[in-house]
Amino acid sequence: MSLGKLYGIGVGPGAPDLVTLRAYELLRRLPVLAVPRPNAYSPSLAFRIIEPHLRTDGEQKHLYLEFPMTKDPDILVPAWAKAFLAIETELEAGRDVGFVTQGDPFIYSTFIYVYESLKAKYPELVIEVVPGVTSIAAVPMVAGVPLVDGQERLAVIPASYGTEELRSILRSFDSIVLMKVASVMETVVDLLEEEDLLDCAYYVERATTSEQRIVRDLRELRGNRCIYFSMVVVSKKRRNGVLRGHHVSKEPVSLGALL
Amino acid sequence: MSLGKLYGIGVGPGAPDLVTLRAYELLRRLPVLAVPRPNAYSPSLAFRIIEPHLRTDGEQKHLYLEFPMTKDPDILVPAWAKAFLAIETELEAGRDVGFVTQGDPFIYSTFIYVYESLKAKYPELVIEVVPGVTSIAAVPMVAGVPLVDGQERLAVIPASYGTEELRSILRSFDSIVLMKVASVMETVVDLLEEEDLLDCAYYVERATTSEQRIVRDLRELRGNRCIYFSMVVVSKKRRNGVLRGHHVSKEPVSLGALL
Repeated sequence: MSLGKLYGIGVGPGAPDLVTLRAYELLRRLPVLAVPRPNAYSPSLAFRIIEPHLRTDGEQKHLYLEFPMTKDPDILVPAWAKAFLAIETELEAGRDVGFVTQGDPFIYSTFIYVYESLKAKYPELVIEVVPGVTSIAAVPMVAGVPLVDGQERLAVIPASYGTEELRSILRSFDSIVLMKVASVMETVVDLLEEEDLLDCAYYVERATTSEQRIVRDLRELRGNRCIYFSMVVVSKKRRNGVLRGHHVSKEPVSLGALL
Repeated sequence: MSLGKLYGIGVGPGAPDLVTLRAYELLRRLPVLAVPRPNAYSPSLAFRIIEPHLRTDGEQKHLYLEFPMTKDPDILVPAWAKAFLAIETELEAGRDVGFVTQGDPFIYSTFIYVYESLKAKYPELVIEVVPGVTSIAAVPMVAGVPLVDGQERLAVIPASYGTEELRSILRSFDSIVLMKVASVMETVVDLLEEEDLLDCAYYVERATTSEQRIVRDLRELRGNRCIYFSMVVVSKKRRNGVLRGHHVSKEPVSLGALL
């Protein structure tokens, strides 16, 4: 029996119609979909995104796999082993499996661990990744603030892993995306205030879903509960504009002014 | 006559089926599509992406707009003024216009200039942005190399605007995406060699199209012509893995080793 094929399917930031045509076709066609969720009692955001697209003939198998949101190896290792085994069982039975992942599969996604682990265990396994709309694109969209253009530089930082170097990154980059910011929100607001960047910053949670929330004055978030799927973006817009090359002028030259 | 609505439609990196369902619906429905191209003699990549999806009843108007690839204001300003005027004429006639853009409309896209300019000129204009799959996600996908996970930090740099600070960025970030790298390729290869990062780097042009090219040994690119739509990605993979928090250990802890 030859192995099934594994797909890592990016399903975008939250809105079901931000799924790509390629992902849609696979969501309809594959015999098995693996859907990660934090635990048996929490809803899977990935499932909510794909639900309107699924076949209703009962012919498709849905594996709900638990990936606890913790860094404790005593919890994580057995949970992941169980999840991987469920996928391996399907692949070894020759069935193709689509692992559904919010956003893009190769950008801060649980799929990366599935990919690395199964690639190491089954060198002959065929894996196809379907890129998706990442929240790094969706969050600026819902806020109406272009992320980067021209010569601007972008830094993307998972803030929950420490804010030590954040000050120097805030100074040297034009746009800064802070992922998983909930647990360090107070520190981030303090730092942005000290660096006089509060006016360039905004907060978004659950972008493109019906529970989307946008906060443009980050001081409102002090003492306020933020969720895991939230992001702070800082867009300085001091070097944007294609006509503002570093060799042209240090002063802003906007096209509007030239026209 | 009320103004038409303006859409900025991200159509993804190149493969027609990496368009989202939302973009697809708009590409079929809107009365006018504005398609940027570098000049009248070059094919529009954006048009090649959307072509298979377009209605064939002749009822849709396609505006080809020229956005020359130069930073010379003497060429750029009149060309842009002409392009903007073509869009404004449609909007003022009450027709909705979809401006089609490769990748995502808010990430290094010509649409940003359209957006800023028309928002300033028509404060009442309704603009909707449809995010797309950015090449920042598609390039790691075609190379089979996860971009960032866990505590990894990502920097995205338009290399053509100078490589002065590139060495320090290469040292302090885990993954680095160098956009528009063609004109500075020799410098970049030298720098990666000096920093002993050639083994972690790869080059991709025209990702997800039929002309896609992947080069894994960047030394092959010395003296070789690279194209504008090309990218170099450096992925160090020295801090990846969710079990490798900075508070846990400085040594790599891979899940594979623990299982």
